[in-house]
Amino acid sequence: MVEFKDDTLTLHNDLYQINMAETYWNDGIHERNAVFDLYFRKMPFDSGYAVFNGLTRVIDFIQNFHFSEEDLKYLKKIGYKDDFLNYLQDLTFTGNIRAMREGELCFGNEPLIRVEAPLIQAQLIETMLLNIVNFQTLITTKASRIRRAANEDTLMEFGTRRAQEADAAIWGARAAFIGGFDATSNVRAGKIFDLPVSGTHAHAMVQTYGEEDIAFRKYAERHKDCVFLVDTFHTLKSGVPNAIKVAKELGDSINFIGIRLDSGDIAYLSKEARKMLDEAGFTDASIVASNDLDESTITSLKSQGARVDAWGVGTKLITGYDQPALGAVYKLVAVEDDQGNYVDRIKLSNNAEKVTTPGKKNVYRIINKKTNKAEGDYITLSYEDPYKESPLKLFHPVHTYKMKFIKSFIAKDLHEDIFIDGKLVYDIPDVQDSKDYLKENLSLLWEENKRLLNPQEYPVDLSADCWHNKHERIYEVTEHVKQMEEELEGEYE
Amino acid sequence: MVEFKDDTLTLHNDLYQINMAETYWNDGIHERNAVFDLYFRKMPFDSGYAVFNGLTRVIDFIQNFHFSEEDLKYLKKIGYKDDFLNYLQDLTFTGNIRAMREGELCFGNEPLIRVEAPLIQAQLIETMLLNIVNFQTLITTKASRIRRAANEDTLMEFGTRRAQEADAAIWGARAAFIGGFDATSNVRAGKIFDLPVSGTHAHAMVQTYGEEDIAFRKYAERHKDCVFLVDTFHTLKSGVPNAIKVAKELGDSINFIGIRLDSGDIAYLSKEARKMLDEAGFTDASIVASNDLDESTITSLKSQGARVDAWGVGTKLITGYDQPALGAVYKLVAVEDDQGNYVDRIKLSNNAEKVTTPGKKNVYRIINKKTNKAEGDYITLSYEDPYKESPLKLFHPVHTYKMKFIKSFIAKDLHEDIFIDGKLVYDIPDVQDSKDYLKENLSLLWEENKRLLNPQEYPVDLSADCWHNKHERIYEVTEHVKQMEEELEGEYE
Repeated sequence: MVEFKDDTLTLHNDLYQINMAETYWNDGIHERNAVFDLYFRKMPFDSGYAVFNGLTRVIDFIQNFHFSEEDLKYLKKIGYKDDFLNYLQDLTFTGNIRAMREGELCFGNEPLIRVEAPLIQAQLIETMLLNIVNFQTLITTKASRIRRAANEDTLMEFGTRRAQEADAAIWGARAAFIGGFDATSNVRAGKIFDLPVSGTHAHAMVQTYGEEDIAFRKYAERHKDCVFLVDTFHTLKSGVPNAIKVAKELGDSINFIGIRLDSGDIAYLSKEARKMLDEAGFTDASIVASNDLDESTITSLKSQGARVDAWGVGTKLITGYDQPALGAVYKLVAVEDDQGNYVDRIKLSNNAEKVTTPGKKNVYRIINKKTNKAEGDYITLSYEDPYKESPLKLFHPVHTYKMKFIKSFIAKDLHEDIFIDGKLVYDIPDVQDSKDYLKENLSLLWEENKRLLNPQEYPVDLSADCWHNKHERIYEVTEHVKQMEEELEGEYE
Repeated sequence: MVEFKDDTLTLHNDLYQINMAETYWNDGIHERNAVFDLYFRKMPFDSGYAVFNGLTRVIDFIQNFHFSEEDLKYLKKIGYKDDFLNYLQDLTFTGNIRAMREGELCFGNEPLIRVEAPLIQAQLIETMLLNIVNFQTLITTKASRIRRAANEDTLMEFGTRRAQEADAAIWGARAAFIGGFDATSNVRAGKIFDLPVSGTHAHAMVQTYGEEDIAFRKYAERHKDCVFLVDTFHTLKSGVPNAIKVAKELGDSINFIGIRLDSGDIAYLSKEARKMLDEAGFTDASIVASNDLDESTITSLKSQGARVDAWGVGTKLITGYDQPALGAVYKLVAVEDDQGNYVDRIKLSNNAEKVTTPGKKNVYRIINKKTNKAEGDYITLSYEDPYKESPLKLFHPVHTYKMKFIKSFIAKDLHEDIFIDGKLVYDIPDVQDSKDYLKENLSLLWEENKRLLNPQEYPVDLSADCWHNKHERIYEVTEHVKQMEEELEGEYE
């Protein structure tokens, strides 16, 4: 394995980005400004809401964006020429980025991040931005859903061993915390991101000693806080009785937090274990459950009366198991012409939902002052001021007859300035702030938007100007295609 | 975000590992040797075979295994005491590791890696080994399945934007290559692992220029090899005709490799595009398809007569979409007693398939000399020599009446020595060798084991000694549980 000591993330890029960059540079248009939107189309997990995340790592990436000597050497090796490489050598990011903050509720078809930068730079940061935001937003959303299912119970992220490689484990642990988890088992994530860490022992320790009571006692010799894992041999006949035996024996010399169940029928076992603990006088001892949990199994276990106080969630959280990719895209919506004026751009598609929304845009959350609930998100062209509209008309962008009017509202700008002219102008909140921010924000949503199964769709609407602009661009392009078709028919005849 | 410049992967660990390590250390048994097996139970994707991968990164991790000053500082901050931290300070890996080589075919319930090391070390490397092997084996397996579906067509890995964070993108690209892909779009993966990279341009370039023919021409001004993306406005009415127009116009000044389809009905569009290209005289031009492909869609498209020559595969490969976690575990199978003799250890479970197979073991692939096909894998206790058995009896470990006898065979040891006494004794093959090795190995399997849908199950059997040893340990533990139950009943009466 070749190792590059100066490994940067700038080459963490699809090759076509570099080829497009080279095309723009060769044509002399590379420093024209362009606007790109980063957004996803479909709600992950059929959720009624998603939670934006990834900005911290995006900022770090942008601040360190440059091609190292080794990067350039490699590009030369695979065929790029010196003239272009000389240009790349000094390239840094000098544009503007506006983005949602971490922990912001977000929805399909609205820009999470808006990049306005010299074309070549905006193009070269696409791949990494998507790689970051797709994963971190996905996992934060999943974590938030699990938090809803678990109500006030303790939630621990246990997914590292099943995470998709090391970065996913630590950024996933961070995402889980922001989404509502209390702690992670990953010590490195704890170190880097200042997250609470938790964990006691595994089956291996019981196996090592061969007898549960000995193992529990040995653990307790060095650790005051004890959660004993009780399913190495037989949960109810051996594990729980041994945990109780050792807890009684050691009395106040330890803090007997409780037991952990990691296999079998958690509903049944937790109820039986609860009885045994209570009968032994350990009414405060908690029951921790782990084993392929997610929001559905937790909801189901609760409805069966499972007596679980804390949940360790691994695989299904850290991989977003039931939908392991968010599918966010990054699309050009405007580019300067040779006069320095923005021209809006569109992409059509055989798949109607993939048609882009052209123009430099803002996105607002419309909060009804009467109810203090969010009525929908409202995407405008950048020159528009939603406060100038009273009442504000919200209409469905496809079924336009569906509309509502709102008189008294707050239009909250969902984007913050992150970079201006390449300079970071944003204070990154710490993870606890982002977690609190999400919690606060969730209270703006109606329960109907938040329920886990078959939620009511939250409206993401276009302003009238934005809608008309989009349809004009569609018309233009389809006219152009028609014209081309006629010309070509002529040619082929 | 707190940044640790000396960030190591040693703390990339579940907290309970550190607490168990501390327990062993406190009890003075931490340097007793223990044997752990790393294996998965269930075949991923219901595949008939899987492909082991991850060893290169495991080796790198083991070689660099140590707690940095910052690691120890953090552990102190969260409550660990100096006596234990002083011990950790000098800890490196001094044990033995035997493992399959990258590109080895592997199956459920057989050890992919066998670690024999001082208990504390073996415990502290578990999390990272699982994190690495679970992902890389999963993606290599997926890639190999896609290779089977694609036959001899070109396969390109395009998944970075949908990968679960940065590590997954690059290690996934490497896994895809070993599994049978020809190239990746990730330039950094190309640089680090010396993989072929590929990619031309995206929709953004066409949108930037507004007109397809201009965009294609601008691209061709700087790039000789051209693949034009034809679905920005209308594939058949605009994209393909414009590609043909520009290719004709530029003639031999470019190498018109072909076109790429990224949306719509690939079966229909590829057939129509093929006709158009052929009629224009570009019979050698390739058609590349991308858009949520995997082995199922490729098989289906081929059965519909799609005229696709090269496939760009992203999301569903890089995330292992239909089963995004392999589920490998790492289980203690033997540990030294105070006399320095190994005692075999077992873990029972309410889930019968989760019972471990105790003992220090080897695993052999039994290749029938007559057919040169693999008859099954054969797990023995480490002292056994399969060549001493003639004929060799292979029997199903659950349905023991299912058996076969093989007379003339090769018993290929599937493990190689990787570390002996902490020293690396293994030459890491380069990725091309591992890829070739997989291809070669696949020829040992019957087609029935390799087919993508409902494959015949490949046998993974235990030797008679290994089977009896397991069942003796099960008997011992269940007797012990029974005894404990009786004692406890006495106690509670």
